[in-house]
Order: sequence, then C-alpha cells, then structure tokens
Amino acid sequence: MELQAGPLLSTIKFPADLKKVNKEDLLQVCTELRQFIIDSVSVNGGHFGASLGVVELTVALHYVFDTPYDALVWDVGHQAYGHKILTGRREQFHTNRKYNGLSGFPKMSESEYDAFGVGHSSTSISAALGMAIASSLKGEKNRHHVAIIGDGAMTAGLPFEALQHVGSSGADILIILNDNNMSIDPNVGSLKEYLTDITTSKTYNKVRNDVWKILGKLPGGTFNQQVASKVEAGIKGVVSKTSNLFEALGLRYFGHVDGHNILKLVETLKDLKQIKGPKILHINTIKGKGYDLAEKDQTLWHAPGVFDKITGKINKIVYDAPQPPKYQDVFGKTIIELAKLNDKVMGVTPAMPSGCSLKYMMAEMPQRAFDVGICEQHAVTLSAGLATQGMKVFCNIYSSFMQRAYDQVIHDVAIQKLPVIFCLDRAGLVGDDGPTHHGVYDIAYMRCIPNMIIAAPINEVELRNMMFTAQSESNKLPYVIRYPRGEGVMSDWIKPFETIETGKGELIKEGRDIAILSIGHPGNFVIEACQVLAAKGIHPAHYNMRFVKPIDEQILHEVGQHYSHVITIEDGTIVGGFGSACLEFFAAHNYKPSVVMLGIPDRLVEHGKPAELHRECHYDTQAVIETVEKIYAVVAEGTGSQRAPSNVA
Amino acid sequence: MELQAGPLLSTIKFPADLKKVNKEDLLQVCTELRQFIIDSVSVNGGHFGASLGVVELTVALHYVFDTPYDALVWDVGHQAYGHKILTGRREQFHTNRKYNGLSGFPKMSESEYDAFGVGHSSTSISAALGMAIASSLKGEKNRHHVAIIGDGAMTAGLPFEALQHVGSSGADILIILNDNNMSIDPNVGSLKEYLTDITTSKTYNKVRNDVWKILGKLPGGTFNQQVASKVEAGIKGVVSKTSNLFEALGLRYFGHVDGHNILKLVETLKDLKQIKGPKILHINTIKGKGYDLAEKDQTLWHAPGVFDKITGKINKIVYDAPQPPKYQDVFGKTIIELAKLNDKVMGVTPAMPSGCSLKYMMAEMPQRAFDVGICEQHAVTLSAGLATQGMKVFCNIYSSFMQRAYDQVIHDVAIQKLPVIFCLDRAGLVGDDGPTHHGVYDIAYMRCIPNMIIAAPINEVELRNMMFTAQSESNKLPYVIRYPRGEGVMSDWIKPFETIETGKGELIKEGRDIAILSIGHPGNFVIEACQVLAAKGIHPAHYNMRFVKPIDEQILHEVGQHYSHVITIEDGTIVGGFGSACLEFFAAHNYKPSVVMLGIPDRLVEHGKPAELHRECHYDTQAVIETVEKIYAVVAEGTGSQRAPSNVA
Repeated sequence: MELQAGPLLSTIKFPADLKKVNKEDLLQVCTELRQFIIDSVSVNGGHFGASLGVVELTVALHYVFDTPYDALVWDVGHQAYGHKILTGRREQFHTNRKYNGLSGFPKMSESEYDAFGVGHSSTSISAALGMAIASSLKGEKNRHHVAIIGDGAMTAGLPFEALQHVGSSGADILIILNDNNMSIDPNVGSLKEYLTDITTSKTYNKVRNDVWKILGKLPGGTFNQQVASKVEAGIKGVVSKTSNLFEALGLRYFGHVDGHNILKLVETLKDLKQIKGPKILHINTIKGKGYDLAEKDQTLWHAPGVFDKITGKINKIVYDAPQPPKYQDVFGKTIIELAKLNDKVMGVTPAMPSGCSLKYMMAEMPQRAFDVGICEQHAVTLSAGLATQGMKVFCNIYSSFMQRAYDQVIHDVAIQKLPVIFCLDRAGLVGDDGPTHHGVYDIAYMRCIPNMIIAAPINEVELRNMMFTAQSESNKLPYVIRYPRGEGVMSDWIKPFETIETGKGELIKEGRDIAILSIGHPGNFVIEACQVLAAKGIHPAHYNMRFVKPIDEQILHEVGQHYSHVITIEDGTIVGGFGSACLEFFAAHNYKPSVVMLGIPDRLVEHGKPAELHRECHYDTQAVIETVEKIYAVVAEGTGSQRAPSNVA
Repeated sequence: MELQAGPLLSTIKFPADLKKVNKEDLLQVCTELRQFIIDSVSVNGGHFGASLGVVELTVALHYVFDTPYDALVWDVGHQAYGHKILTGRREQFHTNRKYNGLSGFPKMSESEYDAFGVGHSSTSISAALGMAIASSLKGEKNRHHVAIIGDGAMTAGLPFEALQHVGSSGADILIILNDNNMSIDPNVGSLKEYLTDITTSKTYNKVRNDVWKILGKLPGGTFNQQVASKVEAGIKGVVSKTSNLFEALGLRYFGHVDGHNILKLVETLKDLKQIKGPKILHINTIKGKGYDLAEKDQTLWHAPGVFDKITGKINKIVYDAPQPPKYQDVFGKTIIELAKLNDKVMGVTPAMPSGCSLKYMMAEMPQRAFDVGICEQHAVTLSAGLATQGMKVFCNIYSSFMQRAYDQVIHDVAIQKLPVIFCLDRAGLVGDDGPTHHGVYDIAYMRCIPNMIIAAPINEVELRNMMFTAQSESNKLPYVIRYPRGEGVMSDWIKPFETIETGKGELIKEGRDIAILSIGHPGNFVIEACQVLAAKGIHPAHYNMRFVKPIDEQILHEVGQHYSHVITIEDGTIVGGFGSACLEFFAAHNYKPSVVMLGIPDRLVEHGKPAELHRECHYDTQAVIETVEKIYAVVAEGTGSQRAPSNVA
C-alpha cells in the first residue's frame, strides 16, 4: 500500500525539489519526513530509530550538497530511509525490505544517489576516501565526499585504519560523526567515554580547573576575574585542539553540533563545504528522535517490527499453544546453565547482546560475559587469549559478521589449536536484511581450516547438546556451531544435557535407492518431505549429519556402498560447502554415486522472507520432494521398467 | 652448526639464570646476546633488524618479570630471537626456521615461555587482555601480562579495538609500544606523525608557546621567570595527560624511554610492575641497533638472508645465464607498464611495498600507488571506493594477509560487483615463515563468493596477461590473481600483452586415460613429470586450467567424457579448493571419473624450504609421476591385462 506524504514532502521527489524549499520551511520538511517514516515502518516494519535520528541531517545534506554528484556514503545504511525517500524512492517506499522491493540499505544498483552499497558497519570512511582520491586524480575540484558514520561504527578497527590514511592524505573529505551513544545496543568501550568526554568538555574543564590551581598558587594577588577569563579562553583554544583524538590523527575537528537543529546544520555544512582537506563534524543526535517510546527504549525500537503508531503497541502474534523458541534464546539460556555447571564458561559478543541473547548472561554474570563493541577481530583474539588460560569461551558472532574476523579464526585460534567455541547465529538466509547479512559462506570458509570442528544442530536439543559438548574438557579443538535466525522446531526443549560424539551423525530414517544427507536446520525440511514421499510410497533414507567436519566417515562409507543416488542439503553455499565435503570423501574412496546438491546457489540472493528465499533457491521441503521424485523418474527409466515412483518401495 | 655464545651468555640457559646476573653486568649480556643473533642470522638467515632492536628490552623483561608465569606476548614475533635464546633454546637456535627446526616465531607448542603463537601482526593486545581477564577471574593477583607491540603493528585496526576494551576494562596489563618508526618498510599514516609528535613533545611545546603568548598579553609586569616556570610545569602535566591518544582511551601513558638503555628499562619496568590497571610504556628503539649497515638500510636488513658479518656483504648466488624473475617483480614492473597505457590503473599495498614490489610504481607515480600501512581492511575498502569511480586498482596483498580483509572482499567488493583486482602474492607454501604465512586457503575462501574471477598463472607471461586482462574495460568483475613466492620459470618474459579469455584454460599436452588438471605454478611440475613419464611411454593429458572460477566448462566436459581418471593439482588446500571445484562440476553433470586431488592436505604444514614442503605434501614433480604410475598400475590390473605402464602408450 502506497503511503501518503505530507503536503510539502509530496512536492519533493528528488533533492532538486528540496533545494527549492525556503530555508524557513525545512523544519516542516523534517516533520513530514519523520512522520512518513513512522507511517511506513509502523505498517511495514524495518529499522526505525536510526532513520528517525538523522532526519534533520538527511534533509540538511541534500539541501546543501549537490547529490548525486557529491557523494553521500552512509555507514551501515539502516539509517538511510530518509535519504531513500528524498531521492526518488518515496512512492516505492512501501516495498522497503519486501521480496522484490527496495533494499533496506543503500544499494548502488538501486539508485545513483546511493554512492556505496552497505549493510555491515564501519566501511564509509575508507570508501569515501577512495572516491575522494579518485576525484582528485581526475581533477574534479568541486566534488564533495561525505561519510556519515555513527559512534558505534567508529569503534571498529577499519575506521581507525581509514582515519590514519585520511589524516595523512590531505584529501577533501568530510566525515560526519553521528554520535547517539548507541549501536543496536548501547555502546561500550573507552572510545564511547572519550566521545562523551569531548562533547561535555570534561577535558577542557579539567584543564581549566588544573590551571586555576596553578594560578592560585602564584605569588601576589594580581589575578582578578578578568585576567582569569583571558587565561581560560586562551587555554581552551589550545587544549581543545591538542587534546582531540581526531586532530591528533590529522583531521580538523568541528563540533559538537546539535544534530536536530536543522538550520544550524545547514549553516554548518555550508561553511564546511568551503574548507579543504580532511575534516570531521561531530553532531549529537537521539536515536528514535520524535517518537517518544523509541527515544526511551532505543534497543527495542531499533527494528521493532509492525506496531500501532498511535498507541505504540508492537504487534505480536499470540499463540494458544507453546511455540518453539528462537535458536538465539536457546543459546542465551543454555550458556547460563553451562556457566553455572562450569566456572570456566564465558561469553563474548561484538555488539550483539540482544541479537544473540547473551544479554541474559551479561546481566546475571557480568564478570564472565562481555560485549566488546563492533569489534569482531578483537572478540576472536580476546577469546583466544582467554582460551590459553583454560577458559571455555562462547564467542557468539553472526555468520556474516564472522567474515570480519577470519584471519583471527585462522591465525589466533586454529593454528594455536585453542578450543574457542564459535556460535554462528544467523547462518543461512536471514531474510529481510538481504545479501550483506545472509550467512552463506561460513561452512565453506571454515571448512578449509585445519583443526576446526564444524557442527550444525537440526533442532534446539541438538544445539544445547553441542554447546554442552564443546565446553567439556574432552574437547581440545576450536568448535563452530552454526544455526539460523528465527525459531527452531521444539516447544519442549529443555532436556538434560547429553554429549554428542564429535563427527557422528545419525540415521533418522532408513530407506532405499536414495540417501539424503542433511546438515543443520534444513534436516527438518527433509523430515517433512519424507513424510509426504512416504505417503506416495517413496522411501529415501535420511541422515542428519550434524558435523561438516570431521565428517561422519562411517555414514559416508555406508552411503557410498549402498546408494546409487545421494542428495545433500544445507543452508549455505553449495560452492565449497557441505555437499562439496561429501564429494571429496566419495572421490577419496572412489565411490561413485550420483550426487545432487541442494543449497544456496553461486549468486547473490536478495532480501525477502526466508521461506520465499528457500523456495527461490530450491532447498525447501518442496524442493526435496521434487528432487527425489525426479531421481526416481530417472531411476525408473534407467532400469527399463515402467515402475512409477509409488511402486518403488 | 651450533653457535658459540659469549662467556656470560653461556651461563644463561633460562631466565632464572639471567636473574642471577648483577645489574651492572646486564649491559654485557646485551652485547653478547646481540652478537649471538648476528652470528646466527649471518650464517643461517632469518629476521634480523627487529630482534637487534629489542635486545635490551628482551633482557630487561626477563630480568624483571617472572616468566613464564608472567606472560610476554610478542606481537608479530619476528623480533623474538633474543627471547628464544634466553628461554632454553640457545643450543637449538642454529635450527631456527629450518625444516624440523625451531620456528621463526613464538609458538606455544615449542615453549611454555611463548605465551601466544604469532606471525601476523597486531594481535598481542587482544591476546594479553584475554589472559589478564582470565587471571583476574581465577584470582591470580600477582601475575603480569605484557604485550610488546611495534608502532607499525599499532596502525592496524585490531589494536585499536583492543585498546578500547583495555581502557574500559581496568585490567592489569602492560603494553610496551616499541616505536622504531618501521614496519618492514617505513611506516606511513597519521598515527606515525602522532607518535613522533608525542615523543618530540611538539604538542607540549606548542601549548607552552601558546600559553606564553596568552600570559604575555596579561596586564602588569608581575610575570618573572620563576612564575613562568611554575605555570609551564603545571600546564605541561595537564596537557601531556589530556592530549594523549592513549590516555584518551583510558590507559595510563608512560614515556618515552630510550629502549637501548638497559638500566633505565629495568628500573622503569620494576616501577610499572607496581602500578595496577591498564598502562602503556612508550619506548624508542632503532631497528637493527648495533649493526651499522642494518641501522642505515632497515628495509634491506629486515631479513637480509645469509651475509658476511664482518664485511656486511650479503651472499647472492651469481648466475652465468639470465634467470627467471620473481613473480613479485613481474607484478611490480608490469603494473608500471599498464599504468602508462591506462591512466586509471592504480596500486595499493598494506605495508608491503618492497615485498610485493609496488615500490617501483610508488617511486615513479606516487599519486597513483599507495602504501596504506598494516591496514588490509582499509586497503580493500579504499580500493572499492576507487573502483566506484572507474579506477582499475591492483590491490596487492599476500594470500595469508588477505584473510584479514575477508569481509571487505565480500561486502565491499563482490556484493557491489566492483572490478577491483586482487593480486595475492605468496600464495601456496611460502617456506621458512611457516604455517602463519603459508597462503593455503585463498582458493577455498574466495571460490565460495559470487561474482569473483579467480585466476592463477602458470608462468610470468600468463601473470602479465592476466593483469592486462583484469584492468581492461571489458572486465566488470572482481578479479583475483594468485601467484607464489619466489621465481617463475621464464628468463625472457617481457612479451607484448595479450588478452586471456576469462574462464578459458588450455590443453598443454594431449594424452590418454588420465587427464591432469593443474592450476597455477604447479602446472610446471606437471610439465616436468610428463617429460619423465613420456620417456617411460606413459602419456597423460595435461590441461593448464588458468581459472578456478569461472572454471573452463568446455575442458571439463571434454575430460568428463573422455577420461576415466583425473588428477588435479594445486598449490592450496585440497579441502574446498580447485580440485573440489572440479568435483562439483563432475557431480552436476553426472560424470564419474576417478579423481585424485594433489595439493595441501588438511593439517598445518610447518616451515621448511618450499621444495621440502611440496615433497612432504606430495604435490611436486615426483608426486605427479608417482600418482600417474599408481593409476596406470591399477588401470592395467583392472583391464585384466599384464601390460606394464611402459606399454600403455
């Protein structure tokens, strides 16, 4: 359903239209833009607080700069809804994050106004610097490049790497530090303290106080109020410059400015346009600004789902019967149970305490569970350091974010043979967030590393038992447990812990002709498919393999010896994935079944509901049924008999 | 050959022996330790300058701290020769970096004194913090944790992530910033300027001057010299604290201290042992200290090879005939040729201008080729930003270091479909540096990413032509070119450029029964093997595949249809690698040859000469011969005939 914009916003299709608005009317544009975002997200869902927080900034940027010639690089990008609405996409905005609709993030192929595609945080400064350097080489003298980055994103290592280059490059680039003191969860770490410090001028106050003390000890009573003020003013100028982290790295620092004062922002940006070289503007905003509830509970309202915009009631489906929990909550609750049993158990998350549900343990055992900020690399190497001392660390990182700490996994964990436990949440196709967030590659990029154990549970109890096994003293190796976003399949899942033998799968269903080998949650699709097929008289065997590595060789020998057809299914790329591991085993032992591999194909998969995407990628229940039936048809033909699939059993 | 230590060093086997030495004799220990390192490296090769630079620090640390209970975490680790010599390994030190000998880096399995295994830079603070937090949880009150990190390593993002956690954690940890202004090449970026700034007290001087100006404007003539001094001293204290990057992040900063003054270091470390909480000691050292030539040309003497310690003459083999160049120099010279033909060509390296030979272009075209410091993540995302503007960027990163920017490859390049060119030098087994530096995983971790082109040249001319093809306007995709450390095979390699069709391999030699599919440099092993086999009357076919992705489907169809046996060979892991890609194709098209995959097995490969390691891993010329002969023996048996391999042809 297309959304209705306010009277002024209705006249603005592109930034050129915005530029025609009188400065005095910009406040009204902001009001209408904010309302449009509230109207839209309340009905369609999506990210909420971040975009509300940058309404004024978005309007000011497009008002002052000559987009798309001037490049706006939005970090993370989930705050770019206002930007999308002002750049020709207002009328499609009701399709935001829907299958075949607009992306929830800036995307180069969607609009020339999206200077860089994003989704993960902390890339904007590097990308904008590349654009600025290219512009300079091409002799484009009046083209501006603006990176808009949050204080949360700034905690990652990449922006620090980029700032050093920016500072020494002399490039014409403006970095806007959008300081709202939040990632999805509240920010952590000393950079946060530092940013608070410079905005509240604690540093300056401290210097002033110390200077007062010094001056107070001086002989003579010549220091009257007037003299003291002069000294203060002078010192303030010197100190604010030299004590500034960004100035130390070679940027000119401006700020801080109220990020909700549209006129002040417009004036400031106009001034900064005239200033050459690398510079940073520090603005303060409130995540969720303009929607009371969102201002008050910023984590809940980061992406609240559909809600009643008047009452603020978030729509949740009410069930009669108990429902399966989210895998993340199975993790979050199980780790506390394990921590109570084993005082070496610890938890680490890089800025996802709510998303991965480590928050429960952080609240209950703050000494043993940390949020380290958007610092995946540090999360992994810290875990390695802890593991050298015998700690059993559950390092929980979303599959797609684990890509950001790949060398740390290889170099600091696997080569060192340290039994760190990696829980990869959001493995597989995550849904609405799309290709940047799909957890597609982890099986392939983990499987090639020696010393790794790679497991994927088919359900909640298996997740619990894998966690139990991974933290036991008998496990001496890095242990990856991957599981998807969303719910499992068991409403009654809190069972006594059992050890799962490493590298051991299980036969779920006996059968003939065809063996289906599943890894992880898609095993449930196979169970469903087998029920449908059984009704048709078709009986493939089904093995829940549980481990990609070490793979269950006993099962694979059995399959290689007894089955002419094999289907593998996984919630990950089929290039180099679990199916490929099976092929390697068959090749090494000279088994020659025909193998069909179901999983994520070798192309980018866009956003949509997981079920829509599983269908599109052909690895849902229906796909298993179709694949089995197709093989049976060929088998039937190949044998020269006319036996229909229903006669096979 | 075991080396002779000086009289005092001879008495020191372990740190406990060092502790018995009188403080006045420590200078002599340093002299003898330095001489021992010179004696050793001049004869055996290895890293040189870095270890010479930290002789005094190494002695002081083991003198003051209670190792191994107190943990020393050496960043990068190539400066840890002195540490190894003082911790029970002096008598084996002549085996350093030799096959089956000591590792060139700290290694946990080698000694309890090696608190953490390393090789790549920038991990020490995170690892030491993990150890410190674990200690604190265990209630170990007097255990110390020291990370020793260079200023070059400090430029990476990971230490910045770690510092934020250190600063907010309150953990008892000492970071020693060993500032020598060098990585392998001179450091770059604004952090370097900043560190110079705080050591030369520019900041303080600036503040003092500004304060003087302010005070000079005050009314009255009451400011005499004495008063001014008091003000100065007071301000100095305030400013040095507040203007400090590390203090800003919550650490106590101490320094700078002369890192070659052993007694001062011992005193300082003793003092710091008493101070709780996170702290950083900034010391200044000279890389190569104590060996004149090494002090003067620090890049050359980073790892000079074998040399005459008296004359300083570095031993180089002199050849009568022209020899094949190093692949890195083919890259380094070819990129300049291409840059002259195409003004969009640019070069980026993260701190390896000498190692990858981009230094030639940096000297000739400084606007178009950059060293960005030990910042692989930034190198990749910067390249992506440049590519959005149509630049043809050759981003040259060693294969094992590319692991440090994996998400940037996926998220900022592949998903954006930007035609960045990645040249992965040091792909395959690199030799003496061992498992941290072997370029084992890149085919597997790159192959699973959509949109990638992955190529590997068999020789110099192919490398040139792949580079030429990758930068052409017709290429629209990210393009990986991987090649090994060391020399190629052609002495006459500067030929006119030719386009190599993407995804096209070539038939090098026709044959029968067995098809050998090679990728990259190991194709030369196959060529040699085929010559040997031909003399025995055995004639496998040989295809140089050139591309892992897109793989040449025409060749694979041909092979699938005509050959019952296939051998794949690659200079990379066989788990998920090139051979696995062939298996996937055969499975998808239901071809069923028997496939033997040669390459790096699924375990860590230690250090040694490449030829030794190729032998050990069974993918050299001899391995190809053996594999072919073994297959022929089976083929012969299978056919029921008695024909010997020599009769096959």
